[in-house]
Parts: sequence; structure tokens; C-alpha cells
Amino acid sequence: MAENTFEIAVIGGDGIGPEVVAEARKVLDAAVAGESARLNYTEYSLGAAHWLSTGETLTEETLNALREHDAILFGAVGADPLDTRVPSGIIERELLLGLRFNLDHCVNLRPTRSFPGVTSPLRGVDDEHPIDFVVVREGTEGPYAGNGGLLRRGTTAEIATEVSVNTAYGVRRVVEDAFTRAQARDKHLTLVHKNNVLTYSGDLWTRTTAAVAESFPDVRWDYMHVDAATIHMVNNPQRFDVIVTDNLFGDILTDLAPAITGGIGLASSGSINTSGTAPSMFEPVHGSAPDIAGKQIADPTAAVLSAALMLDHLGMSEAAERIEAAVLSQLTEWATEGAAGLSTSQRGDAFVARL
Amino acid sequence: MAENTFEIAVIGGDGIGPEVVAEARKVLDAAVAGESARLNYTEYSLGAAHWLSTGETLTEETLNALREHDAILFGAVGADPLDTRVPSGIIERELLLGLRFNLDHCVNLRPTRSFPGVTSPLRGVDDEHPIDFVVVREGTEGPYAGNGGLLRRGTTAEIATEVSVNTAYGVRRVVEDAFTRAQARDKHLTLVHKNNVLTYSGDLWTRTTAAVAESFPDVRWDYMHVDAATIHMVNNPQRFDVIVTDNLFGDILTDLAPAITGGIGLASSGSINTSGTAPSMFEPVHGSAPDIAGKQIADPTAAVLSAALMLDHLGMSEAAERIEAAVLSQLTEWATEGAAGLSTSQRGDAFVARL
Ligand SMILES: CC(C)[C@H](C(=O)O)[C@@H](O)C(=O)O
Ligand SMILES: CC(C)[C@H](C(=O)O)[C@@H](O)C(=O)O
Repeated sequence: MAENTFEIAVIGGDGIGPEVVAEARKVLDAAVAGESARLNYTEYSLGAAHWLSTGETLTEETLNALREHDAILFGAVGADPLDTRVPSGIIERELLLGLRFNLDHCVNLRPTRSFPGVTSPLRGVDDEHPIDFVVVREGTEGPYAGNGGLLRRGTTAEIATEVSVNTAYGVRRVVEDAFTRAQARDKHLTLVHKNNVLTYSGDLWTRTTAAVAESFPDVRWDYMHVDAATIHMVNNPQRFDVIVTDNLFGDILTDLAPAITGGIGLASSGSINTSGTAPSMFEPVHGSAPDIAGKQIADPTAAVLSAALMLDHLGMSEAAERIEAAVLSQLTEWATEGAAGLSTSQRGDAFVARL
Repeated sequence: MAENTFEIAVIGGDGIGPEVVAEARKVLDAAVAGESARLNYTEYSLGAAHWLSTGETLTEETLNALREHDAILFGAVGADPLDTRVPSGIIERELLLGLRFNLDHCVNLRPTRSFPGVTSPLRGVDDEHPIDFVVVREGTEGPYAGNGGLLRRGTTAEIATEVSVNTAYGVRRVVEDAFTRAQARDKHLTLVHKNNVLTYSGDLWTRTTAAVAESFPDVRWDYMHVDAATIHMVNNPQRFDVIVTDNLFGDILTDLAPAITGGIGLASSGSINTSGTAPSMFEPVHGSAPDIAGKQIADPTAAVLSAALMLDHLGMSEAAERIEAAVLSQLTEWATEGAAGLSTSQRGDAFVARL
């Protein structure tokens, strides 16, 4: 049987990142064991600790090396907030956003779901009324373009501008991706924007969605203002299937979304290059949690689910589904029997045992 | 006793607007009966129905007439969403935002609180753990400036930009207002922004807040990213006292905020001109609800609470507090005895009877 080797770049990062990524690798290896594929890992040292020792966030050289891989498995980055040696925002902007923009991660994919044994903070969400939707957030333009400036800084006549840059090219590929995902799910897409106020970008997003919709006649789509979307997330989150939205609205909604499931620590994500010109990246939504790092008490579930998104992206959708099923049935067992006292690696082993 | 007459412009608007405003006037008159003040009302016809019959949203002439008043009491505007004769967004932009920008309503004040008898959709919010905070939203600049454009519309090379415009002048007056309100409340201010990504405007907002804080040494302040703020609203809304934020973040958070109390229909707001160069405006957050208009079944509570904000703004803080107390004790009674079947005007009468 011919073997297909996928080259995976691994960025453990800071805090609990390396611990949870180690479990994701265990589970990945077990999941592909039966496939005609092999995963070959190369570790990269990046993050706040790396910055402290080298002064570098993301060099051209590292970027070029990363480009040679088929995908990137990412843990978490970020210093202890009390560590004043690391300038605020530098790791986020130069490393996290640096990877997204340089590797053209135009689709920021954030699935949101209820998890067994995890109580939602919302009264209206329970085992009979679970949350299950996906946010397709644009990742390479909009208000994140870094366009803007300060005039007369520090004076009473100061002006600060931020320019949201939106292109037909950038919006269309994301909307197409979202429709494709909606078609494979419950065939319902919601465009979230603020087109009554942001009339230029809102016009582009709305027109593009209406145009792409013609190629997906079996997908129902509707429009919702971003402010109203927060109300629906609180009052009726079950109404959503796939949401497509811009970079900043997506940032806000994909923190609200896992919050309403109660499972922020379990949320997974993918930063996807839809054209295949550079590797996509998969990472848990949670942070580096420096306070619990190195103690083997971090929950590796989000990293494992992100690894499943990676397999799906690499074309191994059955292996991805096996991981998801293993995780869900293990969480269901833990919901009744309890998982307290299990170490990070024991949790990873439990997922492997289920595969 | 010398009488002080306040000239109040009344814009009932569309749908249930005129009905709820009529009750607000009743309550206002009862509340000021003991004061050395009188309210004199002038009605203005504006809104979707007015647009349909005249083709006008807001003329210079109307604006100039409104400027002569001490305050504006506003109901609700907006056509039936099924009425395709009214172009989408026109009433919102030309009338609502037109008033805000032309009358320099720099502070959009949105108090959020738990109400007796209203169950929060959040499990963590109940009578012992109520929500009670105020959002001070900037109202005249930021991404709402209307600055931007479309290039090569409709082609694959289209570009749409939106320019968020932020000035030291515009930010400082809002931050000062927010600190003043925090000082009169629980002395805790939270600046919400996204200064790790929107670095230019984020820098201006953060620096301005730090500078104004020096004049309010007894107010504790902290900073929160807008995405994280949505998590806190869901998981721990009791932590907030006063939030100050920009126009767009404020728009989003002030829909989320009443949603988490369960009392969106009861939320009040003020659009405040802090320099006194034009009248401030007070309005319920709810819409015109054309489906229940004219049936005397709309709840006038939000309009009545907005009228209380108006009295407070006009310097009659005791009368304002009497209205608030009357509303809260009446809602408490209805919470146990029920208010079903009471007409809009019977509800207004009940508030008056409590005064
Ligand atoms: C860390 C930050 C730059 C980032 C963002 O704003 O995109 C984060 O909030 C996220 O959602 O991945
Ligand atoms: C109707 C719309 C223009 C308005 C806004 O975006 O400010 C509304 O959402 C609000 O919050 O008052």
C-alpha cells in the first residue's frame, strides 16, 4: 500500500501549549494508524519564551521553513500577563496575525458546540437543545488590515484612523467556503454584518453573498446585523448553522459563541488557506494558561479536536470523524464518572484507547 | 414659586412609538407635579410613515426647530419590515443617526439592569445576583463616521473601505462623562476596545482613559478587549459597573447587555449632548413593533424609564428617582400578581398611581 507522508509543523508555544500538543500528536498517530498515510512532525520554537531568548517573533527564515509543510499544529502562545518584559500585543500581532496574514489564512474556522457534561451558562441550552454551529470568519483583511494612523499624537487635536479594507477577492473566497460548509451541514447560512451603517463593506459582503448563493440553490441564507446576532446567540443559539462574517465581527462572535456553550476551554479552530498556496494551521482557542503550565493538569481536548480539523483538511475525513467520536464518547463517560485527577497525558491516553 | 418651563420635543414615531410615549408623558407630568418645573410638549411627525407621506426623513427646518427644545422624547421609528416601499436602512441612517450626528449626541447612554419578574436567560443571574451596569457608548465618530468608499463596484477587483475616525476631542468628552458616572455609582470603569489589533484608535482610547483617570483617583479602571467582554457578559456580568467604549463596540455590547438581563423590551437609553449646544434625546431601546401597534398592548415601561433619564439630565434627579422607584415597585407587584391583560394606558396609570 503506497504511503502518503504529510509533513506537519508543530508549534507547541508557551505555557500549556507543548503539553496539549503532545496529546494531540498521540491521538493523531493512533487515528491515522489504519490509513495509508503517515504524519511526520517537525518542531518549531516560537512564542513569548522564544522571543525572550532570541528577540524574534517570526523571521522570514522560519516562515519559509513553515511553508514547506502540509499543515501546522499549534498549541498556544503568550507570556504570563505579569511578565512585564514582553511588550503587550507583540506576540499576538507579529506571530499569530503574522502567520495568518503571511500564510494567507483567509478562512478562520471556528466550530461551536455543546459538549457532554459541560453545562451551558444559558438556561435555554441543554442536552435536548444543544448548540452546534460553525463560524467562518474572514482572516486576512477588514479592520485587521493594519491600515490607519495617528496624527498629532498626544495633542488635543489628535486624530486616529483605522481603515477596514475589504476586497471582492477576499470576501468571495470566504463566502464560497462558508456556503460549501453549509451545504455539507444543515444548509443554512447566516451572513452577519452591519450593512445599515458600514454601507460600503456591507454592500460588498451582501452583494457577494447573494451572488455566491446562486451556485448553492439548496442552501437557505439570511442576513443579520451583528448587534442582533448577539441577541440571537443568547436567546436562540440553536437557530444558527453556519455564520459567515468579517474579521472583527468574527473575532467578537467567536468568543461569545464558545462562551454560551460553557466550553470555551474545549473549542478548536482552523486558520485555513483555501487555495493551498501555504499550510493551514490548527489550534485550540484557549490560551497558554501559564499559571497551570508544566503541571500536567491542562485539558488537551481542544488541541485534540483541532488535530481532527487538521486531518479533515488534509483529506482524512474518516480519521477526523473517528477522533471526534472518540472524544465525544469519552467526554460522555467522564460526564457521569468524573475525570478529576486525570493528568493531561492520561486524558490523551483515554482518547487513544477509544480509537 | 418661580416656575421653570422645559420645552420638550416629542417624536412618537411609528408603530407602538406614539402609544408608549403618551404613557411616558403622563408619568412625567405626575413626577414633576411637585417640582418648581413644568414640561411643555411640542409634537413632531417623523419616521417611516412620515417618510412615506412626505419623502422626507429629517429636514434642516425640522432640525432647527428641534434645536430650540431642552430635550427630545422619542418613541420608536421603523416601517413594517414587510413594507418594501421603505428602502432598507434609510430611516435608521438619515433620521436616527442624523439626529445623533447633527445634535452632537456624543454620549450614547445605555443602562442595563435586571428587572423584577424578568428571568435572565443566564443561569448565573437571579434576584441575589442581579445585573446592574451602564454602557457609555461614543455616539458621533468611530466606524460610524460614514467615511469610506467603493472602488470598481461589481467587478472582481472591487475594494470597499470603511474609515473609523477617532479624535482626542471626541474620545475625551465621552471618557470624562463615563468617569463622572462611575464616580456616582460603584467607582469602577471598564474601557472596552481592541487595542491589540486596532492599534491607532486603541492607543488613543487607552491613553485618553489613563489621562482622564488621574482626575478621578477614587475610580478604579481596567481594560478589556471587546471579544473578552462578551465572555464576561455571559459568565460574570455582575463584574461591570460602567463600561466606556467606541461607537461600534458599543452598538454590539448594548444589544448583548439587555439580552442577558432578559429585559430587552424594558431597556431605556439617552443620546446625550454633553456640552449643552443642542437637546439630548431619550428613547426606549425597543423598536416600533408594527405587528402590535395601535392595539394598546405595548409595554410602556422602557419609554417611562427613558423619560426618567430625561428628567435626570434636565437636573430633576429626585423626580427621576421617584419614577424609577415607582416603576420598580410596580414591576415587583406585577411579578407576583401578573400584569397580563393590562392595556398600555392602564400600565401607565399604574406607574402614575405609585408616584
Ligand atoms: C490575539 C488576537 C490578535 C486574536 C484576534 O483578534 O484575532 C484572537 O482574539 C483570536 O480571536 O484569535
Ligand atoms: C439602527 C442603528 C443605526 C442603530 C445603531 O447602529 O446605532 C441601532 O442599532 C442602535 O443601537 O441604536
